[in-house]
Amino acid sequence: MKETVHFTKMHGAGNDYIYVDTQLYDIPNPGKAAIAWSAYHTGIGSDGLVLIGKPQNGRRADYSMRIFNADGSEAMMCGNASRCIGKYLYEKGLTRKETIRLETLSGIKILRLHLQDNKKVVDSVTVDMLKPRLENPQQFRGPSVLEADGRIFEGTYVCMGNPHFVTFVDDIDTIDIAHYGKILERDEAFPQRCNIEFAQITDTDIIRTRVWERGSGITMACGTGACATAVAAALTKRAGRKSSIVMDGGTLEIEYSEADDHVYMTGPAAFVFEGEIELEC
Amino acid sequence: MKETVHFTKMHGAGNDYIYVDTQLYDIPNPGKAAIAWSAYHTGIGSDGLVLIGKPQNGRRADYSMRIFNADGSEAMMCGNASRCIGKYLYEKGLTRKETIRLETLSGIKILRLHLQDNKKVVDSVTVDMLKPRLENPQQFRGPSVLEADGRIFEGTYVCMGNPHFVTFVDDIDTIDIAHYGKILERDEAFPQRCNIEFAQITDTDIIRTRVWERGSGITMACGTGACATAVAAALTKRAGRKSSIVMDGGTLEIEYSEADDHVYMTGPAAFVFEGEIELEC
Repeated sequence: MKETVHFTKMHGAGNDYIYVDTQLYDIPNPGKAAIAWSAYHTGIGSDGLVLIGKPQNGRRADYSMRIFNADGSEAMMCGNASRCIGKYLYEKGLTRKETIRLETLSGIKILRLHLQDNKKVVDSVTVDMLKPRLENPQQFRGPSVLEADGRIFEGTYVCMGNPHFVTFVDDIDTIDIAHYGKILERDEAFPQRCNIEFAQITDTDIIRTRVWERGSGITMACGTGACATAVAAALTKRAGRKSSIVMDGGTLEIEYSEADDHVYMTGPAAFVFEGEIELEC
Repeated sequence: MKETVHFTKMHGAGNDYIYVDTQLYDIPNPGKAAIAWSAYHTGIGSDGLVLIGKPQNGRRADYSMRIFNADGSEAMMCGNASRCIGKYLYEKGLTRKETIRLETLSGIKILRLHLQDNKKVVDSVTVDMLKPRLENPQQFRGPSVLEADGRIFEGTYVCMGNPHFVTFVDDIDTIDIAHYGKILERDEAFPQRCNIEFAQITDTDIIRTRVWERGSGITMACGTGACATAVAAALTKRAGRKSSIVMDGGTLEIEYSEADDHVYMTGPAAFVFEGEIELEC
């Protein structure tokens, strides 16, 4: 049997997902749909599938988000996707709230919408990414030194729900991210592997960052990677508590709040197109 | 100003394009739209944009096709796209004809639709790819020998509107297509560069083929490359006049007709999804 499903394609800083409102369409096997639909050439093409729905616990959250990667696995959380959901819910009239409580696999996330004066368009969204954790599973803390293919990388371990190793370099546009990222990802310091951020201070509180995501390789942008970079820069006094993280897919504004030690990520979200596809049930 | 354009995403053997009916929507700058829309992550994602319209010369053709590559350049012709157009025109009710004359930049192509018994669904489409040309610009003809990084490739030059060099190998699944393709593409035998097909006979009249397209690199399938492979196999007696070309994106059935020396390509075409996107005018 086939059902026609309406979907919306959105991206946040180049991180693109297929969004489906599960209040309207039932997706019985989201992992399978994510694999088929994420395929370039024969599918819609995306980084994965995001299901928007009602939360399990109706009292504490407004909506829920589930994310399935292009390989069918379920992700805990994605900052870029949660910003897109804020724009989706507001501009499609599913909520009039400007602060939204979003249920995810890694807890309830708070989204704050920044509206244009007409109150119709969401310009950007701030996500409370909570407190970073600064110990890695091997218990080292703060700056650390790793070696890859004869080159020394001094860096900082920051966990934003997922693990990051942030290393500041002087030659970000010429460094071979794929080569060193692949080696550092699997360093013995990281039993569960690690995302690697290569960062360079280009101006006061402006940080160019290139991301090597464990399992995915070089990506256009990584929300948690941007947060980790800003935290590492603040901890090592390379930048203040607020910095702009410039990645290939776009720029994210990160505040590592002195008031509550939470990390607040602000960035864009964009509609790309609306579509309809057949779902094999 | 913005206009909302309805589009259809289709693929033929993994070669995927965005199809727009220009009788309904005006695309004033198709090269620019092809670049923006073909982008993965921030666009629809595709190999390019195909405009379906009425032919310039209304008497000789039923419809016209223009193809714009993902880099905005206009292509002469694409066998995989023309099969998709046959399915599009018939299943969307734009024609009841089972033989369609399609105007392209490289002349009028004849499509023959193969229908399911219900007469509603197009199973596959045959395209008359006309006669191959067997001389290359340097005037060599038939089998020839090239060298790349110390390895000898014996092959056949076949022009199907665009140039191909077909070389039969014994180890198609282990050969480094990217390495040798890149070198052979720019061999001095090919002043305008050349598409390279690596082929292996795997059974009687069944040929596994991997394609290196000039300017694009490794692709999932290439209609003219499949035709060139079948012609080369027939000319060198490795296969008969009809063969199945098995590529990563799917299988094409090729007949190199004894009756008229035309090459007839038969293969699948598939709808992927329908969509709507804003066009910046």
